[in-house]
Amino acid sequence: MFRIRQKVLFRHCDPAGIVFFPRYFEMMNDCVEAFFDQGLNCPFEQFIQTAGIPTATITTTFTSPGRHGDMLDLGLNVTRVGRKSFDYEMSCYCGKAQRFTTNATLVHIDLDGKPTPLPDSIKQRLIGFTKVSS
Amino acid sequence: MFRIRQKVLFRHCDPAGIVFFPRYFEMMNDCVEAFFDQGLNCPFEQFIQTAGIPTATITTTFTSPGRHGDMLDLGLNVTRVGRKSFDYEMSCYCGKAQRFTTNATLVHIDLDGKPTPLPDSIKQRLIGFTKVSS
Amino acid sequence: MFRIRQKVLFRHCDPAGIVFFPRYFEMMNDCVEAFFDQGLNCPFEQFIQTAGIPTATITTTFTSPGRHGDMLDLGLNVTRVGRKSFDYEMSCYCGKAQRFTTNATLVHIDLDGKPTPLPDSIKQRLIGFTKVSS
Amino acid sequence: MFRIRQKVLFRHCDPAGIVFFPRYFEMMNDCVEAFFDQGLNCPFEQFIQTAGIPTATITTTFTSPGRHGDMLDLGLNVTRVGRKSFDYEMSCYCGKAQRFTTNATLVHIDLDGKPTPLPDSIKQRLIGFTKVSS
Repeated sequence: MFRIRQKVLFRHCDPAGIVFFPRYFEMMNDCVEAFFDQGLNCPFEQFIQTAGIPTATITTTFTSPGRHGDMLDLGLNVTRVGRKSFDYEMSCYCGKAQRFTTNATLVHIDLDGKPTPLPDSIKQRLIGFTKVSS
Repeated sequence: MFRIRQKVLFRHCDPAGIVFFPRYFEMMNDCVEAFFDQGLNCPFEQFIQTAGIPTATITTTFTSPGRHGDMLDLGLNVTRVGRKSFDYEMSCYCGKAQRFTTNATLVHIDLDGKPTPLPDSIKQRLIGFTKVSS
Repeated sequence: MFRIRQKVLFRHCDPAGIVFFPRYFEMMNDCVEAFFDQGLNCPFEQFIQTAGIPTATITTTFTSPGRHGDMLDLGLNVTRVGRKSFDYEMSCYCGKAQRFTTNATLVHIDLDGKPTPLPDSIKQRLIGFTKVSS
Repeated sequence: MFRIRQKVLFRHCDPAGIVFFPRYFEMMNDCVEAFFDQGLNCPFEQFIQTAGIPTATITTTFTSPGRHGDMLDLGLNVTRVGRKSFDYEMSCYCGKAQRFTTNATLVHIDLDGKPTPLPDSIKQRLIGFTKVSS
């Protein structure tokens, strides 16, 4: 499992004093970006020069409210590696309290937006990561 | 179906020139807020003085990339009205091209974060809206 | 003066229940974008295909807190038109209560990021707008 | 000088591939929040339970475009400590290249939004910090 920590900051929170849920999707994106950089050894700022990896579907369950000051642990597992796409699951905890779980499919596209096979090097690292993380 | 229009603005778009997907979740929240205000006749800024309505689960499929300048039509249908929660489905089109579909569950909570029955007036309007919209 | 209206929405507000100030800078950007579109007859999504207009300097004074539900009126005046840049001032009111005033300089750049003369058509419209608005 | 590092992420960047300037104001807010937490030993999530510290005025000059992948160093100096407010200056560098400089005034308010004297403990730490940092 690939992990990052993220403190819940003032900018994440809404008038109810809890994390505004679209901000969680920004955190998920940050986690995927860090995974490319550190987990796949493929810095996102280089990757997107020649390709894209948009989210095709995403399902999230928010299990408890996130509060300002929470130290969140986000963990990402690769659950499927296809020819032109892969799936991940992500969980987020504050200590032992789960904040959310997510399942998503990311599609590899070229610069014209057309789905295109994942580079073999990335595909192997994704598969390797799946094994390592299980 | 409750509808709002939203032009895709510079601030919504990412380095790939398409809508950054967390920004779509902000649009969905804006649509729900407008639905409370205009659809349910319950201005959100008053509603949240005594209650909350956080998203418990949300599933979204992004069917085509949104581009800067797109004029988006978001439509919301109520699909289930429970005692303490309700479900909506939302679709987003640019002309005839679908951008995304979403299904979500919102839970009614009190100011302590505890699920609590929907006020009868809102419940009736939600049910009424479901009938009107089908 | 070029004007837009913007209701303060849930997503704009912070745990103190007032507008989170970086969200005001998003509103200012939206106002500049609408000004290009409707004021200058130069849709921003087309303009940025061949150029950019980043903010070089910006000074903002927040004079009263913005609250969820406020109906804001943002007004933009062009105050200087140079060869490669122009200045605007913007004010924001909720009814008669001023929320902020801003002064900013925008620089016209080419796609390599180099300052470059404003197209004459835009320059004339900017100048015309200044006269009209004064 | 109080310092934090922030990598420029995908979510910070606009269709031009550079940092969208309102995102810089979020970074500034993150830096102020970290300064309260680590610099003043006053965790922001506790501080805002009984007070607020909104930005009253802010002036920023953007000196070079920030790019995806930049490792930014933000540095904050306290430049004035008043009875109910204080000023800071902030600079942001990517290596030796300056990205922006900011000067801002923050006002200490009570929960009703009324300016109120800074707690003596915070005031002393602010003053001490000024001396330490000069």
